[in-house]
Amino acid sequence: MISVDARRLLDRIRDLGAIGRDGEGRLVRLAASDADRQGRDRFVGWLREAGLEVAIDRMGNIFGIWRTPGNAGQAPILIGSHIDTVIDAGIYDGCYGVLAGLEAIETLKASGFVLSRPLAVAAFTNEEGVRYSPDMMGSLVHAGGVAIDEALAAVGTDGSVLGQELASIGYAGDEQPGFLKPHTYLELHIEQGPVLEREGVPIGAVENLQGISWQRITIDGVANHAGTTPMSMRSDAGHAAARVVAFLHDRAKASNTPTVATVGTMRFEPNAINVIPSRAVFTIDLRDPFEHRLQAEEAALAAHLEELAAAEGVTISVERLARFEPVIFDSRIVELIEAAAISRGLVSKRMTSGAGHDAQMMARIAPAAMIFVPSAGGISHNPREYTEDTELVAGANILLDVVTRLAT
Amino acid sequence: MISVDARRLLDRIRDLGAIGRDGEGRLVRLAASDADRQGRDRFVGWLREAGLEVAIDRMGNIFGIWRTPGNAGQAPILIGSHIDTVIDAGIYDGCYGVLAGLEAIETLKASGFVLSRPLAVAAFTNEEGVRYSPDMMGSLVHAGGVAIDEALAAVGTDGSVLGQELASIGYAGDEQPGFLKPHTYLELHIEQGPVLEREGVPIGAVENLQGISWQRITIDGVANHAGTTPMSMRSDAGHAAARVVAFLHDRAKASNTPTVATVGTMRFEPNAINVIPSRAVFTIDLRDPFEHRLQAEEAALAAHLEELAAAEGVTISVERLARFEPVIFDSRIVELIEAAAISRGLVSKRMTSGAGHDAQMMARIAPAAMIFVPSAGGISHNPREYTEDTELVAGANILLDVVTRLAT
Repeated sequence: MISVDARRLLDRIRDLGAIGRDGEGRLVRLAASDADRQGRDRFVGWLREAGLEVAIDRMGNIFGIWRTPGNAGQAPILIGSHIDTVIDAGIYDGCYGVLAGLEAIETLKASGFVLSRPLAVAAFTNEEGVRYSPDMMGSLVHAGGVAIDEALAAVGTDGSVLGQELASIGYAGDEQPGFLKPHTYLELHIEQGPVLEREGVPIGAVENLQGISWQRITIDGVANHAGTTPMSMRSDAGHAAARVVAFLHDRAKASNTPTVATVGTMRFEPNAINVIPSRAVFTIDLRDPFEHRLQAEEAALAAHLEELAAAEGVTISVERLARFEPVIFDSRIVELIEAAAISRGLVSKRMTSGAGHDAQMMARIAPAAMIFVPSAGGISHNPREYTEDTELVAGANILLDVVTRLAT
Repeated sequence: MISVDARRLLDRIRDLGAIGRDGEGRLVRLAASDADRQGRDRFVGWLREAGLEVAIDRMGNIFGIWRTPGNAGQAPILIGSHIDTVIDAGIYDGCYGVLAGLEAIETLKASGFVLSRPLAVAAFTNEEGVRYSPDMMGSLVHAGGVAIDEALAAVGTDGSVLGQELASIGYAGDEQPGFLKPHTYLELHIEQGPVLEREGVPIGAVENLQGISWQRITIDGVANHAGTTPMSMRSDAGHAAARVVAFLHDRAKASNTPTVATVGTMRFEPNAINVIPSRAVFTIDLRDPFEHRLQAEEAALAAHLEELAAAEGVTISVERLARFEPVIFDSRIVELIEAAAISRGLVSKRMTSGAGHDAQMMARIAPAAMIFVPSAGGISHNPREYTEDTELVAGANILLDVVTRLAT
């Protein structure tokens, strides 16, 4: 059994994490920014040092490919993730998966193994979606979900145009998106949730990815004096909103399923201490790994809103903000992940990804799965994001093992 | 039975309501502003036209007094309210009571009746409390609740100092606050609530004024990813806040008492659609006409917060923002209001004032009561504030009758 070069992997994670620090020391490598260029340049440098073929497509997606004369005609096994970050990010989200992919390929390349398929590592453009919308854009384009010209025309929060920015940082490549057709797609990622850490499990075999339903709810009542309006004569939009929050929480908590429901934003109008709220605006984030359950949750919410409107004398309007169906990963690959963990003497756990990842896009065009490692406290998108070195190395070795099984 | 001059009263309400319009046509006569000066000048002009003695105290409170040689030694019957306004106000709040007081005195003066006591009408400074805090400041100072020098040192939202502003508009008078010791205090006001209109009752005999408890609650939980954090591992500050809103609403609604509970402001942090709220900050406005019940509501809330903190894994801190005990008005005067309504063939209803008024301060130093007339839709502090002319005149006649009974 071969293993990755732990020191090289950990050093690269820290090296890349030092690139793109702003004046306050925050890690900010927004997609197609100058900081992103610096990160990309470092990654491409490592690809070349490893002797990989570097290809960049029009979307700015970067590929490092290892082909041998014996397998050049076969579809490659692709390992991917992203190296763009949110504002004030941690150093692991995305970067860990990309650098572990490179590490696995370098390790195999040095091993002398004869592989039946090429291996490739990808860093997809704009996974975070902070500067340009939607998120997971690079893998979405690769999978044919959005036309390249439409994606390149995306206007950023700073008014910039993605295509122009990619050209200006030197990463508007020549390859047509989707040029590389993977045989299999693998993604290694920190969990960004608390489950593995709390349960003391080092490896997550990710068998599916939750569907997401985002809605914005606006409740309109009547603003009235808090002192002079009897309880029975109120149309209190704030109270109605509170009922929805409690309903969603109770239902999800009692469901005995992985359904999660979150009201993350809330705004009252006029927002005065002695005025009954005339309006409450809030968002609902519903997730479930199974489409039929997600639909059932949406239907239950809609029925609740209808009853509430009648009971509280308010009007309720619903705006759909986003909707993604759940993704079921390839069961054969998930089994390979479990088998690899057993071989390494590591406990693994089948689990659902609660966050979105490039793998969900790539699953449209190839058998795909993900490997998770623990996130301390479940914290991500934050400088406190942390995974133990031994856990990072263990995850990379599982990735190596699965790639080896798939390619030999 | 004599009656007020309806035309004169209604014309004056409209005249005063036309003074202090800003560039957008909004009525804005904030305390001690130039617009307030214009309103005061008009009012003082009417006092002089009516042949009343004009007195202004150091607080800027304006008094119009009618004494006769036969009653000059007696304590006067004082009718008061205010002519300062909120931003974008209606024309009735406060002004109606002041002008109806003047109208009642003018009517009695012209009637030839011999009165056993002087009559006086007062316009108290800064009842609204928009520019300077606290509200009801002029009557509070008159009643000895705050020292005059402290009140005059109040710094406004615009950085101005009340004493200087009063001097600059020419209303820093010579009289010592409290110089006029009333035998009785009466205040006529629009209800600013929906009860009289909904019940079709033209006259409210206000027997008490609610106590007020204002608190700001801060709930701290843990921000986590909305997709990756199972329901059982959450410390959701927003959900805990929603529980408090529902608890207060249900308790007040089920209580079968006039208790009212309002959560008028709400803020989530970080307020992101896919992040579990780490913090919720909101205000609670609790009111009840009886101190023991108000205390019971506060205690029930405190117990609920304690249980909630334990059940939801959040920490809760409470800040007291304001606390006023309920005021019980003089039952003899309330009975006179009811008797006057019967004599005029009008239905009346004993009721509680849900809003604060100068009468609550004056009740500290004299038997006091209030008369309410309907407010369309309960709307106040808004240009849509409205009371029918016939209702305004009816209320003024009840005031006239009660004053007549008290002074003859």
